Parts: sequence; structure tokens; C-alpha cells
Amino acid sequence: MMGAALAGAFVDRGHPTTVWNRSAARADALVARGASRAETVADAVSASEVIVLCVVDYDAAHAILDSVGDALSGRVLVNLTSGTPGQARATAEWAAERGVDYLDGAIMAVPQGIGRPGARVLFGGDKATLTALEPTLAAIGTAVHLGEDAGIAALYDLALLGIMWSTLSGFLHGTALVGTAGIEPKAFTRQAVEWLGAVGTFLPGFAAAVASGDFTTDVSRLSLNADGLDLLVRTSAEQGIGVEVPAPLRDLYARGVAEGHGEHAIASLIELIRRPAGA
Amino acid sequence: MMGAALAGAFVDRGHPTTVWNRSAARADALVARGASRAETVADAVSASEVIVLCVVDYDAAHAILDSVGDALSGRVLVNLTSGTPGQARATAEWAAERGVDYLDGAIMAVPQGIGRPGARVLFGGDKATLTALEPTLAAIGTAVHLGEDAGIAALYDLALLGIMWSTLSGFLHGTALVGTAGIEPKAFTRQAVEWLGAVGTFLPGFAAAVASGDFTTDVSRLSLNADGLDLLVRTSAEQGIGVEVPAPLRDLYARGVAEGHGEHAIASLIELIRRPAGA
Repeated sequence: MMGAALAGAFVDRGHPTTVWNRSAARADALVARGASRAETVADAVSASEVIVLCVVDYDAAHAILDSVGDALSGRVLVNLTSGTPGQARATAEWAAERGVDYLDGAIMAVPQGIGRPGARVLFGGDKATLTALEPTLAAIGTAVHLGEDAGIAALYDLALLGIMWSTLSGFLHGTALVGTAGIEPKAFTRQAVEWLGAVGTFLPGFAAAVASGDFTTDVSRLSLNADGLDLLVRTSAEQGIGVEVPAPLRDLYARGVAEGHGEHAIASLIELIRRPAGA
Repeated sequence: MMGAALAGAFVDRGHPTTVWNRSAARADALVARGASRAETVADAVSASEVIVLCVVDYDAAHAILDSVGDALSGRVLVNLTSGTPGQARATAEWAAERGVDYLDGAIMAVPQGIGRPGARVLFGGDKATLTALEPTLAAIGTAVHLGEDAGIAALYDLALLGIMWSTLSGFLHGTALVGTAGIEPKAFTRQAVEWLGAVGTFLPGFAAAVASGDFTTDVSRLSLNADGLDLLVRTSAEQGIGVEVPAPLRDLYARGVAEGHGEHAIASLIELIRRPAGA
């Protein structure tokens, strides 16, 4: 789905686009919109100076890359496959050994959002290479250069998706909790969207505290929030719903208090999070 | 701190305001700004038609309320003390038995945000009582009527705070994760704030799926996100940080897949969350 969305965005902006998919029929709709079909990966690679790769994982990516080998030399490979920072860095080395300019990107959008306002693609790799490609990449979204490290986009991607997974679980728990009093999801969501906007305004203050290591606060101390999480867990249980979402947070915040951060800001929890489990 | 912020906001907007605190000296700054000092709770209650109560918990609230008893009759009690829905409902009954009009509110702001744009106070209780008070309550923030149930604001409060606690933990984990590659908190936060705005736009779609029970998706299926969470946990461990934040989410998402929701939207997790632990 993502590959088709990317190719479609290039086609729609008038970029000559050659498409290849393991299942050739998957490309039919794109060909109908103006894309050229490559019968082989090698044909796809030789058709363009810029190759965009977006497959399910790095096993699939390397199966494809290994099959083309030196045909990529002198071209630019834009890898938008999801994986770990280590996988991205290893692929950057693979590319460097073959004289391939390499950019590793993470798409911060769903397929339906590609090419729309708000779509962002985070990149690690050579900045000049990215700058030269920006007019082309603008078809899919705003390109953001994070650093020269090819693994940096994968790391950001996971870190940002982690915020999403956390936020969505909190939202679903809240929806279930107010649902026990007959509140409709839509009504709760109005308040949740407003509130999430407010929470976003807290983040720069958290970042400043983490950067400085100064966790003193006159806003909201950790112990109050730990008490609040305990109240949330107990109320959730009283209302007859599960506590899988808030209970681990209650435990984390309580551990922060136990380790002496009770009077500190919530941001002080990073001192626990930075330590590996069991340390 | 919150009580002083509330009283200060009323004083600053020109409302005749009488203040009482268990520690009388705490009121000095407010008196200097124009508030009247009450020597006793009974004096504070008899001074005004509207009494705003904001203390640390319901034990403290009831100790105060029980000491004044019938002096509250015929007045309006606006209780902004944090607690459970059950505590709020019990206090509403206590008030009704004494002929006291009762509103139960939850302040969605930090003390420093009181009276500023964006400050919201969620209320449960009689709508006409709230409407009559709105011009006064505007001093502290926008009053939102959620329903007649006196416990509804406490339930919303916990549900919304739960989103905050989830989001902040995800943000701190992400900050720690990119920090392993030398990325400064401030740089990550720029992307995180943008991304959190995008996540907010996903919530209405989640609410619609929960309301309809239709969890089919052409955007992002649960199994992909469960794989992503597994990658986040493994990458966090590889980078040498703790996994207290993502590991419980990985387990929840994996359980959703195991229970047959792999091809469904993330919102389908609410079916697990709605069931009490162990059920």
C-alpha cells in the first residue's frame, strides 16, 4: 500500500516513474495512471537515476538489492523500508561499497496521507544528496534532514511511533473508562483532542528539564501524578475495565517516587528509563 | 498552589473574594492583592453565595465540609477537589441532603495556566446552576458541562490525565532512545510536537471505529503495529535503555493479534481493554 502511494504521488506530480512489484499485477493501476512497468528489478534500477525502495522489511529489501548488485552504482538509493537503526546503517555501508548514494528515510504518514499537507519524511544521510532530491521528494511530503547518520531516521521513527502507541493506548483506555458511564466515544474525543493539544505544549518544558538535568518544578510534582495514576488504576478496576494500560505506568511513576523523585518534575522519570531493565 | 491560583484569578477579575486556608499565612499574598481573609471556614462560607473548594483530597474536603454543616444551605458549592467519580457522587448527595447546589469540576490546567487561554474546567451537575455561574467561572477558564452526573468530571479527568501520562511516558522513552545517538531533547521535541499534532487527527477515526464496532481498516492493521512495538522494544534494549514503557504495550498489542485482531485497526484493542484484568 505504501509503495503504491509513493509511486502514485510521483506519477501525479509528473515525474517519469518506473514501477516494479514482486506481484506484477499490483502495478496495473499505476501503469494506468502513467507509470512505466519494469519487468525485472534490474530494469527498474536502470530506468532511473533515483531509486525509491519501500518493502515490508530488510530481509525483503536485501533480497532485492542483492539481486541487482552493481547496477545501482552511481545512482541514488532512497530506502524507505522500516527497520532498526543498525539495519539502516548496514545498508548504508552496503551502498557505499558499491558507489551508491544512500538516503535512509522514515515516512511519518499513512499511505492515504502521502503527498498531502502534513506528510513528513525524516531522513538520515548526506545532506547535499537530500537537498538535491528535495524537489522530487516534495511529491510525497516534506523532507526533514535529521543528520548524517543513516540510522537516525529509523531511530526517530521508532521513537515517534512509540509516542503514538503510548498516546493511542491512553486514548483507548480513556474511551473505555468514560464509556462505563455511558459517554460516547465521539463526545470524549472532543475533549481528548483539545487536551492532547495542551499536552503537546508541555513537551518543550520536559525537553528543557531533560537537557539541563534540573528537575525542580513548581508546576506538578511526580508524587502527585503517581497518586493520580493509582487513582486511575483503582477507578478503572471499580468501573470493571482492564488496567493493562495504566498499571505499568503506575508502577513506573511509583518507582520514580521510591527512587527519590517525588518532589521532582515528571520529566525526572527519564533517569529510570535511561537505565536498561534490571539495572 | 491551585487554590491560590483560583482565588487570585477571581480577585484579578474584580470578583469580591474571601479566602481561607488551613495555614492562614498562605493567604497573605492574596489579601495583599485584594482578597478578604476569613479567620474560620464558617466565616468563609457565610461571606459568599458561591463557595469554591479545592483541597488535596476528599478526606480533607469532608473534614472542611463537615465542620460547616448547614451553613452551606442555599449556597452553591463548586468542588474542584480531585478524586474518584464515587467520591464526587457521594459529596453531591451530601450537598443535596443539606439544600446545597453542587457542581463537581475537574481543572484541565496547571496552576500557572489558570485564567489563561486554553484553561478548561470540566463540570458535572445541574446545567442551569453552571450556566448561572459561567460569567464568574470564566475568571479561571472555559467551563464545559459534561452531564448531570456529579461523578462525570472526575471520570473524564482521570481518563484525560491517563492520556497525558501515556503520552508523556512515550515522549520520555523516545527522548531517551534518540538520546543514545546523541540527539538533543530539543531537536527531538520539534518532531515530537509536530507528530503529536498528527496523532491527534487520528483520534476521531478511532472514536468512530469504537462507536460502530467496525474495526476493518485500509490504513494500518494491528499486526503491523505489534511488529513495530516489538522492534521498538528490541531496539531500545540494543541501545541500552529500559523497556518499561514499550514492553507492556508490545504485550497488549500482541495479545490483540493473538485474539484475532491482527487484520483489524488498532482501535480494536478496546475490546481487550474493556474486559477486567484476568477476564
